[in-house]
Amino acid sequence: MHNKAIIIAPSIMCADLCNLEKSVKEIERAGLDTLHVDIIDGAFSPSMPLGIDTVKKLREVTDMDFDVHIMANNNEFFIQEMLNIGVQQISFHLETSIHIDRYINMIRKNGVKVGVALNPATPLSVLDYVLPQVDTVLLMLINPGFATDKNESQVSYATQKVEDLSKLIQKKGLHTRIEVDGRVSLDTIPELVRAGADILVAGTTSLFIPNNSLSENKLLVEEAITQGLNIGVK
Amino acid sequence: MHNKAIIIAPSIMCADLCNLEKSVKEIERAGLDTLHVDIIDGAFSPSMPLGIDTVKKLREVTDMDFDVHIMANNNEFFIQEMLNIGVQQISFHLETSIHIDRYINMIRKNGVKVGVALNPATPLSVLDYVLPQVDTVLLMLINPGFATDKNESQVSYATQKVEDLSKLIQKKGLHTRIEVDGRVSLDTIPELVRAGADILVAGTTSLFIPNNSLSENKLLVEEAITQGLNIGVK
Amino acid sequence: MHNKAIIIAPSIMCADLCNLEKSVKEIERAGLDTLHVDIIDGAFSPSMPLGIDTVKKLREVTDMDFDVHIMANNNEFFIQEMLNIGVQQISFHLETSIHIDRYINMIRKNGVKVGVALNPATPLSVLDYVLPQVDTVLLMLINPGFATDKNESQVSYATQKVEDLSKLIQKKGLHTRIEVDGRVSLDTIPELVRAGADILVAGTTSLFIPNNSLSENKLLVEEAITQGLNIGVK
Amino acid sequence: MHNKAIIIAPSIMCADLCNLEKSVKEIERAGLDTLHVDIIDGAFSPSMPLGIDTVKKLREVTDMDFDVHIMANNNEFFIQEMLNIGVQQISFHLETSIHIDRYINMIRKNGVKVGVALNPATPLSVLDYVLPQVDTVLLMLINPGFATDKNESQVSYATQKVEDLSKLIQKKGLHTRIEVDGRVSLDTIPELVRAGADILVAGTTSLFIPNNSLSENKLLVEEAITQGLNIGVK
Amino acid sequence: MHNKAIIIAPSIMCADLCNLEKSVKEIERAGLDTLHVDIIDGAFSPSMPLGIDTVKKLREVTDMDFDVHIMANNNEFFIQEMLNIGVQQISFHLETSIHIDRYINMIRKNGVKVGVALNPATPLSVLDYVLPQVDTVLLMLINPGFATDKNESQVSYATQKVEDLSKLIQKKGLHTRIEVDGRVSLDTIPELVRAGADILVAGTTSLFIPNNSLSENKLLVEEAITQGLNIGVK
Amino acid sequence: MHNKAIIIAPSIMCADLCNLEKSVKEIERAGLDTLHVDIIDGAFSPSMPLGIDTVKKLREVTDMDFDVHIMANNNEFFIQEMLNIGVQQISFHLETSIHIDRYINMIRKNGVKVGVALNPATPLSVLDYVLPQVDTVLLMLINPGFATDKNESQVSYATQKVEDLSKLIQKKGLHTRIEVDGRVSLDTIPELVRAGADILVAGTTSLFIPNNSLSENKLLVEEAITQGLNIGVK
Repeated sequence: MHNKAIIIAPSIMCADLCNLEKSVKEIERAGLDTLHVDIIDGAFSPSMPLGIDTVKKLREVTDMDFDVHIMANNNEFFIQEMLNIGVQQISFHLETSIHIDRYINMIRKNGVKVGVALNPATPLSVLDYVLPQVDTVLLMLINPGFATDKNESQVSYATQKVEDLSKLIQKKGLHTRIEVDGRVSLDTIPELVRAGADILVAGTTSLFIPNNSLSENKLLVEEAITQGLNIGVK
Repeated sequence: MHNKAIIIAPSIMCADLCNLEKSVKEIERAGLDTLHVDIIDGAFSPSMPLGIDTVKKLREVTDMDFDVHIMANNNEFFIQEMLNIGVQQISFHLETSIHIDRYINMIRKNGVKVGVALNPATPLSVLDYVLPQVDTVLLMLINPGFATDKNESQVSYATQKVEDLSKLIQKKGLHTRIEVDGRVSLDTIPELVRAGADILVAGTTSLFIPNNSLSENKLLVEEAITQGLNIGVK
Repeated sequence: MHNKAIIIAPSIMCADLCNLEKSVKEIERAGLDTLHVDIIDGAFSPSMPLGIDTVKKLREVTDMDFDVHIMANNNEFFIQEMLNIGVQQISFHLETSIHIDRYINMIRKNGVKVGVALNPATPLSVLDYVLPQVDTVLLMLINPGFATDKNESQVSYATQKVEDLSKLIQKKGLHTRIEVDGRVSLDTIPELVRAGADILVAGTTSLFIPNNSLSENKLLVEEAITQGLNIGVK
Repeated sequence: MHNKAIIIAPSIMCADLCNLEKSVKEIERAGLDTLHVDIIDGAFSPSMPLGIDTVKKLREVTDMDFDVHIMANNNEFFIQEMLNIGVQQISFHLETSIHIDRYINMIRKNGVKVGVALNPATPLSVLDYVLPQVDTVLLMLINPGFATDKNESQVSYATQKVEDLSKLIQKKGLHTRIEVDGRVSLDTIPELVRAGADILVAGTTSLFIPNNSLSENKLLVEEAITQGLNIGVK
Repeated sequence: MHNKAIIIAPSIMCADLCNLEKSVKEIERAGLDTLHVDIIDGAFSPSMPLGIDTVKKLREVTDMDFDVHIMANNNEFFIQEMLNIGVQQISFHLETSIHIDRYINMIRKNGVKVGVALNPATPLSVLDYVLPQVDTVLLMLINPGFATDKNESQVSYATQKVEDLSKLIQKKGLHTRIEVDGRVSLDTIPELVRAGADILVAGTTSLFIPNNSLSENKLLVEEAITQGLNIGVK
Repeated sequence: MHNKAIIIAPSIMCADLCNLEKSVKEIERAGLDTLHVDIIDGAFSPSMPLGIDTVKKLREVTDMDFDVHIMANNNEFFIQEMLNIGVQQISFHLETSIHIDRYINMIRKNGVKVGVALNPATPLSVLDYVLPQVDTVLLMLINPGFATDKNESQVSYATQKVEDLSKLIQKKGLHTRIEVDGRVSLDTIPELVRAGADILVAGTTSLFIPNNSLSENKLLVEEAITQGLNIGVK
């Protein structure tokens, strides 16, 4: 397992929002091919970082995979908007979803990967009948929508939850990917990867550490990943 | 009155959302000093063009006046966010406001201009006790949040409503500014200005007419304005 | 004016809901060509008399005009459903509408007549910019959705409000029709017609008075109408 | 008009909430017979000063008139609760009411006086068909639910609005009472009374001015009232 | 177990909605005694097939058992309405219920059977303390309220979920009935019955297969049931 | 374990709401140091027993520990209000919480104990990642907010759920306290204590049994507790 491919997905919220094209081109040049796009509606959480039209325009200037994370009360609306734009993966929160299978079908029928997102405290039992239907489970490791709140630190049970989910996936004989989001830092990456994380949403504590270049940070992240994969191996 | 200063407020939604800094600098160079910023929450209308963080970042790269138009269900949240960013005018919709005087006070106490926005069908009677408290009344001339819907045309009574409001302001001896938003085009500007419009939200039918430069379009808009002011004079 | 054509619109709620086809055929045979269809969502009012599928099926068995009165929180959804079915007039409540011009356009573009409905206490000022855009104003004369509550009687100012609206329409040089709904009885019809009502929603106090045949009741209603038209004339 | 009886209605929020019986008895002894009871649900405004059970218990220890002011989203629920307790007047806000005539009927049928409450910015046109049905119109002079916010001062147009309403009542030949609520102080009482106020909700700026006894304050309030009545007369 | 009585519950949505009395009499004559009644409020799902008044009238013309499935946001309102009408079983969704035991008690105290309904993706863990209190668990096998959407097919894990629930019931020594709803077809009935289904909601893929008579279809359904029971026996 | 300290927490709803200071002093004198404070918003349940200002004033007259139980839709608002007042423990319902870890952190950072409350039917699986973060789990044994409804009796599985939770806590090696609320009577206390309850919310069926003094009732409650602890020991 130590040569498992781990995806580093830089969060668009950490890009230069006034120069997105330039910023995304720089991310591309660093050899990254997945962009994590956070869509929050201001009601699910008191935060609305970026808009739908911004994503639409961004779609026209880059071929990166868009990995969209919807944090909203009206999932069907935002899923449909993202499908119209043309993205590669859409994750929605189970806590605000009533017609879960419907949303999964909507996304799947468009040839787009499906993820379901879980708040930190949400139990894995909500996945009982969902897990085999999805490509990815996105585990929030901080309260979603509060990334800019300095008081929000990664929940203490982050690694434990990744591990629990990893075991559950193995037990069911599935290959669902685990995505982790929230203070995924150089310090925590080794343990998160060791525990089974496949996709790392990268922000100011990893790929965007200030004063380093993106490439320098990418090297540090890759080292942390390797470290994690090797723990897993021993 | 024919030398009344009419403000042309380009809509940020028509700027290049992936190169906002560059786009806004170009607007600055064209000699415009007010940027119209539309904040929609996806629930008031099925549209969420741009995010709060985008406005925050934009604040750092330009000194233009930000003229914010909030189309949302939770006005207090968005007003507070805009005050934190530092903008020059905030308009909120009366149709979704319960504590109108409170919002006016919140904005005023921060030294920011206050506007109230009205949907096309909303009667002017809602202004009975509000008009003397505000700097601007923003009249929507299409249904707000549906600007990209090609079927939405300016309401037939647009000029009439501007005229009614203009008379009301004069009758009360006030100097409230009238802002018009929605298909404010080269064709309609003369009549809207003649009827009393002071601030023109400019989009794809005026300042951003395709294939022309911003400066070329600005000249056309100014001609239309002059035409309107002169009708007013005769 | 005494030969103005007044429409009697029997309420589907008074038809035999278990034998709708038969019941509607009987209404047709009585020479009536407009069926008033009440759609309530259980949230606007604690009542949900009949469903969308019922209206859809009914559409297949009769050519009567369907005059739909939506009492709901989500007007856009119900308007779209009624347009899909194919009805002749749709009225929606202004009290729960945020994008009024949009709904009017949606309906109009489908070649369907547009009505706006007002609760008893709603002032006519909400019509300031709406009146010239619509075919009909439906005035509720009891609280909508409480027709089966025996304590609900017609509001005391019913005639006055019809008269006020009638004058407003004349003053604006329009031909908007006035529809009245709620305890429109043999006793009140003369005054309502005299005051300017054009469409009478007919229920258990007029067309469906128990123990009489539909034809007998229709004659009584027509007499009451004639009486009202003649008062208007004198 | 100078011997018109003005009611001073002390707000229960200013009583000693841990010793309500004692506090209310003291109010009784001061010769006051109306207690103003504010019911806020925490959603209409971010405030929930006191509960239903408190009012219920209070009902058992005093015969004062309870003048209830509901500030809530679910008016029907709170009206019914207050009717069950047995109060003398219930005012509800028109801004959150959909079935206004129904609430009026519910209250009236129980032999209880009916009031409708208006936020400061709400136009009087909402009263067009409501005014003749109610005993009292309660005009909020600050944003309701923010009484403890020191930044909230009485709106500048307070007297003007009372005067407008007073003229409207006279023009319609009615005897509706005008109740004023929000920073009704010794300073503002004369003008409010002069303008037509009938019921004064009394709080920390009048009847509960600190360091004075209730009786002393009552005398000051009465002087201010007399002063107001005399202005009216001259 | 192979002679376990399986109930076939024809869905009222498949009856002739314009001739319900006739349609239900035909169902009765085919020897069926349970009618499945779907109540959807248009908000839980974008669908509102039939109304409360229709159920009320239907109650007067047939003695069939009414097995009501409420798909709504306001469960308490609809439960109370159904209790007033007089039905034999009421199922409500746990996903929209906050006071679950209260609803169970309300129904039980009226001598009516209680069911709880689960969306496809909802885990069985929500039944931990509920299962022993109810007569029936209704498992939705498609997204509720989207029956007319041709793209909606039965979820792939339908049989698995029935089997899981069946084992859970046995493990707890209970006799709770399992009701299945959503594309319950001649093809899927054998496996669903084998897995433990007790009540089959029958629609256009079983009892109402076009071009066959109800009796012919009933025979086919019964054959499919027998087939399923026999698999269970082997 | 038989000398485990069980806390008796009298419910403020059973105190004399018109003489709270006196009532609370009497509770203090009886040797009790924890007051259970129920905050309901009228929307979570149709009940709003007491207000925030009442709690604020009560804070000034007693040093008892305030054990607050929030039953509301907007948890963040009520948590913040209670933190401002200065209380010792705050429990909020998981059924209405979206950002659970955030609320836990808000409370914990203020040095206040954290509880999570569960409706009777809510499964313990919601605690999977929450249990180690909290001091207390409050198990509702009747539907919350319906305490005054005589038809509401303690759920039949009350003891079982306490026992299940107790085992779960032991299995995880935690010391989380179990609080029980709802018809915690002299009859049920022994079994609840035996099953693992640590905090007993005491109302009219225990500490406030009519016609007895508080001290007399306290003795009876203590006897019931001792009885329960001894069962536990055998």
